[in-house]
This record gives sequence, structure tokens and C-alpha cells, in this order.
Amino acid sequence: MTVEADVRAFIQANGDAFFADLAEWLAIPSISIDPDRADDVRRSADWIAGALRRAGFPAVEVWPTAGHPAVFAEWPAAEPDATTVLVYGHHDVQPVDPVELWDTPPFEPTVRGERLYARGASDDKGQMLFHALAVRAHLAVTGRSAPAIHLKLLIEGEEEAGSPNLDSLVRGHADRLACDVVVNSDASMWSKDVPTTCTGMRGVVGARIVFRGPSSDVHSGSFGGAVRNPLTELCRVLARLHDDQARVAIPGFYDRVAEITEAERDLFGRLPFDEREWLAKARSRVAYGEQGYTTLERVWARPTAELNGIWGGHRGPGLNTIIPSEAGATVTFRLVAHQEPLEIQHAVRRWVEDLTPPGIEAQVEFYADGVRPILTPLGHPALGAVTRALERAFDREVLYTREGGSGPSAVLRDVLGAPVVFVVMTVPDDAYHGPNEKVEMPLLLKGAEAVAYLWDELASPGELR
Amino acid sequence: MTVEADVRAFIQANGDAFFADLAEWLAIPSISIDPDRADDVRRSADWIAGALRRAGFPAVEVWPTAGHPAVFAEWPAAEPDATTVLVYGHHDVQPVDPVELWDTPPFEPTVRGERLYARGASDDKGQMLFHALAVRAHLAVTGRSAPAIHLKLLIEGEEEAGSPNLDSLVRGHADRLACDVVVNSDASMWSKDVPTTCTGMRGVVGARIVFRGPSSDVHSGSFGGAVRNPLTELCRVLARLHDDQARVAIPGFYDRVAEITEAERDLFGRLPFDEREWLAKARSRVAYGEQGYTTLERVWARPTAELNGIWGGHRGPGLNTIIPSEAGATVTFRLVAHQEPLEIQHAVRRWVEDLTPPGIEAQVEFYADGVRPILTPLGHPALGAVTRALERAFDREVLYTREGGSGPSAVLRDVLGAPVVFVVMTVPDDAYHGPNEKVEMPLLLKGAEAVAYLWDELASPGELR
Repeated sequence: MTVEADVRAFIQANGDAFFADLAEWLAIPSISIDPDRADDVRRSADWIAGALRRAGFPAVEVWPTAGHPAVFAEWPAAEPDATTVLVYGHHDVQPVDPVELWDTPPFEPTVRGERLYARGASDDKGQMLFHALAVRAHLAVTGRSAPAIHLKLLIEGEEEAGSPNLDSLVRGHADRLACDVVVNSDASMWSKDVPTTCTGMRGVVGARIVFRGPSSDVHSGSFGGAVRNPLTELCRVLARLHDDQARVAIPGFYDRVAEITEAERDLFGRLPFDEREWLAKARSRVAYGEQGYTTLERVWARPTAELNGIWGGHRGPGLNTIIPSEAGATVTFRLVAHQEPLEIQHAVRRWVEDLTPPGIEAQVEFYADGVRPILTPLGHPALGAVTRALERAFDREVLYTREGGSGPSAVLRDVLGAPVVFVVMTVPDDAYHGPNEKVEMPLLLKGAEAVAYLWDELASPGELR
Repeated sequence: MTVEADVRAFIQANGDAFFADLAEWLAIPSISIDPDRADDVRRSADWIAGALRRAGFPAVEVWPTAGHPAVFAEWPAAEPDATTVLVYGHHDVQPVDPVELWDTPPFEPTVRGERLYARGASDDKGQMLFHALAVRAHLAVTGRSAPAIHLKLLIEGEEEAGSPNLDSLVRGHADRLACDVVVNSDASMWSKDVPTTCTGMRGVVGARIVFRGPSSDVHSGSFGGAVRNPLTELCRVLARLHDDQARVAIPGFYDRVAEITEAERDLFGRLPFDEREWLAKARSRVAYGEQGYTTLERVWARPTAELNGIWGGHRGPGLNTIIPSEAGATVTFRLVAHQEPLEIQHAVRRWVEDLTPPGIEAQVEFYADGVRPILTPLGHPALGAVTRALERAFDREVLYTREGGSGPSAVLRDVLGAPVVFVVMTVPDDAYHGPNEKVEMPLLLKGAEAVAYLWDELASPGELR
């Protein structure tokens, strides 16, 4: 028998028990943004802590935060110089409204065919629990009493609330969380037929730009045409955010941008991208963006500036003939490696100041420090290990994606100084965040299988950092 | 004795009675936008109707409208082919809040020095009532039993509410209101030491432009950079409303604009304009507008485009990382002779359509038909008659102003086909619309005097239309 056959047999034999356990966990409505569910989030933490203990983890702790608790579990390798791996995910879930759109109650897990329906089935309880099955398969097949790598799990309880305490949690426990590589299991794969792993996430900087003109609204008949209108001037500046090739026109914005490599571009190009399907998800009729890049490259590998909102003067029905006293807008910049949020903030501020005309007072504020982008290059040994593990599990070529959004991985990478790789089994039609969230049950078992291989692959991966 | 000495003597002799009458009228709180004051507006109409009858007008009628009543008075000339003059003004007043800022109660008329304080003292009851005194002086001094012109007065009751029924009122009574010239007594003079008359008012077109992109808000991390953002595109279009010389950049916008004449420019230039005072009123730090024109020319004699409000996506605190589904703005265009509101609407619509990129659906709506500008050229005989009448009353040179705003005069001009001239005795520091509204009592008497001359001057003015 091959190792693969042994791993599959073990996982198959334990599949029913795995899904029974998962259903128990999914029945706990651990909605982190709902204050009335705080006890449930706590119960959810306790549940996964117990499950990890039953799986054999010698050390499992529930870590309090200023909000909801996280769970930390650790299973040291026998070898003192083994690679240390930190798995990241979360045990809290999204709200369920509009609950009337669910075919079965969100916290009564229901199997239909090969799918398990419940809030949290894919995001992220299913992907967390397969790690408990994976390490048991790894041990059973290798005959080890401890994993080939020093295994740590961090399962936070506030990811769906924006991880407000993750930074202080990670900094406060940096010694316990120290690792050589982070395995993120909170993202999605291309599709169930196209196994992929994610190589990076965009960072983000959020800005609020306010222009002030007259000290109060003044009549546009009496004064129109003879003083600066802050709303007009704001539009004139925001219109210059992009050039005619849809590139961000802020000086210095692209200075540190790592160009997409030909290899990555080729691999992205092999993904079965269907523009019509994508446009349906984007609720748009035409694709449009930076010239010279495909849609996937634009959302994954290129930085952007997007206006998120604007306000100023009259809104609503009717006319109000004023020159408004002020106008403002929020803009988010998505960043790619190796843009630095603080440098981008500086560039944005200087750009606004340079374009602000006399008679207008500009104010530029940023929402916190922003989030740095993460990118694990294709040649990275940790990514190689993940690729091999997935290829063994799926028996087919593994391709690469990135995420256009921004996530907590950057905190782990920055604080712990470790590269981030992804083992994720959620697929886009799993409706995470929406009604009728589900998970493909065979994929969760593939996830367990892939991770069982991954601990071997990472035991001697080459230079990780 | 000269005619002037006789007129002055008559007005002087009747001044106390005039102000006693005015105080009685000012005590009626005829606030047209306050539904609780409808009875008071009605009482105000009845009061001025009675006062005009007492002054000798042979025909006085209270005309109902869908809102508040107007008053019409008529005093035919003895000569059947006499010039017909329609005086326009209003008997309703602005609200009084914040009432605590008034030094004396707004509806308890109070004399301090040469000033009479009350809501409506200058806008517009004082300027209406002096017409009753003026016609009596005109008759007394000329020895006529009927005025030298066929005199009509229209005193509406909804001007401060935007004259919502004026158009239908004027159209419904067009035969009764037919005239050769309209004398508007609802505007302001430069200052009490600088007698002026107004030669025109700007017209207005109000537009609402909405851009629609994705059929619902979408996540700016997942889709940002790869679809059109309707807010960004709206800003890009609105930024092109003006060129770098602050001219409106809509093709055809200036096609019909009557350039200010050198004579008018010279006369405007002789007004004692103080930019610091003007900026204080504009609540602005610097003047800015179309290159090649002074501030007064910009607000009086040049057309403009002003953004009055904008909306779209997130507003308020915090970030919301979306590409908004739609964004919109309101814009008002102030027009000068001989721009046509419907042509401007057409030009605006075509301009927006031409600039709307693929993937964006643009919607352009206009608020009613707009208001046409009015302009009575400096050489017009009616303006000559007003100028001579004012010069006789003030014993000094009369200069010219215009109004940046838009008013009901355009309705009278358009429906009745008559030129509009202005005899106005309000001055900018009269605080009409604000707390402590007042009127300069000697100016009201000057107004009566000027109008007493004006009926003679207009008796044979030359070709009026």
C-alpha cells in the first residue's frame, strides 16, 4: 500500500465520526458581531478546545481577549529542531439574516447529497476541524507518537467582526505563537474541480478626505461663480485618482509594486476563468481596469484606489441652491507586495495637498495604520510543500490564486516574521456569509488528507524564511 | 417751487401717517411657509387691499390661489392710450427663527433712529406700501384725478415660499395684468448712499445626475480595480464641468450669452465694491471664478454651474469597503440673457451622455423647466425713465446692479411680454431673511418720491417693448 492509500483509508474510516463532531460544533451559533451571542462564542471556543484535546493535542488553552476568546493548541514534534507550523483560522461565524432565505435552519446542520448545510460549515469551522482529523491520520500512517512538525493552532473568535483584537493577541503571545510558517485555512479554492492554493492577499489603506470652503453653506445664486465650491474641487481632485489607463495617478504609488511574474501570469491564465460568471458576481455589465492586465490580475495582483463613499451639501429630493461648506469622501487603496501602508498614506496626503487649490482647506485622515499586503512567491519552499501535499491529495495539478481582499494573515506574517501559505477547501459557491452556507463534504476530507501529507512535506522543506 | 419741492413737501407731510400705516401692516405675521399662519397671510392681503382702497385705487381685488391670496389693484389713466405699468411685490414674509436673536419682537414694529425694525419692513411690505403714497403724491402735485399711466399692482402672498402659484396666477389673469412695463419692487439697492437700479436677474436650471454601476453594492476588495465605480466616474464627469479658467465646459453653454457691454462694465466698475466685505458675506477667504471678469461681473452677468450636493455609497464614520451601486449629484446652472433653459437642459443631457463610459448607466433629470434670465439693456427707455426718476429723487448719479439669483420677474416678463425694471429701496444690511430685519425710513420716502416722478417719466417713454 502507498502512504496515500493508508491516509485515505484512515480518513474514510473516520469520516462519519468527523462529520458528527462537526455537526455538533455547527449547532453552536457563535455569531461574533451579535452581543447576545457572546456565550455561544464562548461555548464554541470550549467545544473546539475539547475536540482538540480528544484528538490528542497535549496542550490546549482558551485565550481571553478584550472581545471573544481564541483557542490555542500545541503538539510539539519529537525532534527539538523540527519545523514549527502555526495553523490559523476562526471559530466565530457570520450572522444569518435574512434567515427566511435558508432552506434549513442555519444552526441545524443538514446533509443533502455530498453537501453539509449550516452557518460556519465552510467559513470556517469545517476547515478548522479537518486539522484535528489530519494530524491523527498523519500520526496513524507514519506510526509516530508526535507529528513530524511542531504543530500549533490559533483559532480566533472575532474574524467575522474584523479581528479587532488579533494584533494585541498575537503580540501578547508572540513567544507561544513563534513559528517558521503560517498555514492559513480561512480562504477559498478556485472550485471543487480545480484545486488551488492562494499565494497572497492585498493590503489596504483607508482614507477620508474632507474639503472645506465657505465657513457655512452660502447661496449659489448670490455667490455662485465667484468663490471656490469645495464639492466641485473635491470632484476635481478625485477625478485625478486614476489616469486614462485606469492606473492610480498618485506619484510614487507604484514605486514598490512587485510586478507579476511571467510564471504566475501563465498559471493564472490556466485557471478556467469565465468572464460572464465573474461579471454576474460583480453585478456589472463590463469589466474595466488597468490596461495591460486581465481581470484576475487586476483584482489579485495590482493595487487599486476605490471611492467607497462621498457626501456634501444637499441630498435627497428637490433642489437646495447652495454652495456647500464642506464635502468629503472615503477612499480605500488595495496594496500589493511590496507597497508599505505608511508610505502610501504619506503619498496620498502629499498628493491631496498638492492638488488643493487656494481657498480650500483639505483634511486627510487615515483609518488606523492600514494592512500590509502578503505574497509568498511561487518558488518559496513552503508553497512548494503545500503544492505537493495538495497534488498528492487531489491527484492533479495544483494552480494558484490570490485574494483581492485583505485579511488577518498580514498580522501573523508581520508579528511572527513567518511566511503565510494557504490550505483551503471552501469554494466560491459555498455561500459563506450568505443564506444556505454549505461545504462540500468530500473536499473537507481532501483537506484533512492534504494536511496529513503537508506535515511530512514541511518536516524538511528547505529555507523557509 | 419746483415739482420736486412739491413732491417732497407732500411726502414729508404724509410721512408719519405712512409709517403708522406700515406699522399696522407689519404687525400681521404673514409667514407664507408656516401653515399655521395662513389666516395671517389672508389678513395681510385684506389689510393691503383696504389700504390701497383708502389711497384711492378704484379697483382692488383679493385673488385666491391654490395657496395664499394675492392682491390686485388698478387705477386707470384718464388717457385711453396711456402706458400701462404693473408693479410687482409681495405681502408675505420670511419666518423669524431664531427669534431669540431679535432685539425687539419681529411683529412689534419698533423705530430706533431712522430705522424701522420688523419682519417684512424691507422685504417687502415697506416697498409695497410706498406705492400707495407715491401715487397720491403724483396726483396731488400734478393736479390729476387719475395717474399719468394706467397703474396696476400685483402683490403676491407666496414669494417667500418660492412663488409656487405665480405662474398659473399670472397666466389665469393675463388679460387683467397686461402691461407695457413691469416695475419690480422686490430686490435691493447697492447702499443707502449709492442709489442703483437692477437691470437683470440670472435664470436657473436645476439638474440631478445619477450614475449607476453594479446592480448592488459590491466588495471593493474582491472587485475593486476590475469594474467601473459609478462614484469615480461621476467625479470624473463633474470635474469636467469647468475648464481651468473656471468657464463652464459644456459644449454650446455660452452660445447665446450676451456679453457684458463696455458701458455696463464701466458702470459696474464705479460701484464702491469692497472685496473684503464681499468675502465676509460669502464666508470665504478668496474670490475665484471665470478668468477675465470681476467678482461682480461673475455673480451678476456670467452664467455658472455649481454643484449643490452629492451622495453615493458610504457616509459617516468608519470605512465600508464597497463599490457603491450608484452615486448622484445636483447641479444648478445660473443663466444670463439670452440663454434658454430648455436648450441648456439639452446641452447638459448630451454632455453627460457623451462622457458616460461603458458599464455606467446615466440618468439626467431636471427640476421643472427652469427660469429664464431677464435683462433690460442700459439703453432701454423704461430703464431710462427709472434712472431719471431715481436721479430726481436722490439728486445724484444712479448706477446699475444685477441680481445673481433668480426670481419671479421672469414669469411676468415671459407671460406678459413686458420688460422688467426695478425700483427698490432695500439695502444689503437690512437683514431681510435674518433676525432684526429693518428698513431705512428715509429710503422708503425716497422710493415714494422716485415713483411719483416715474409715473410722469413713463407717460411718454418712447418704445417700451
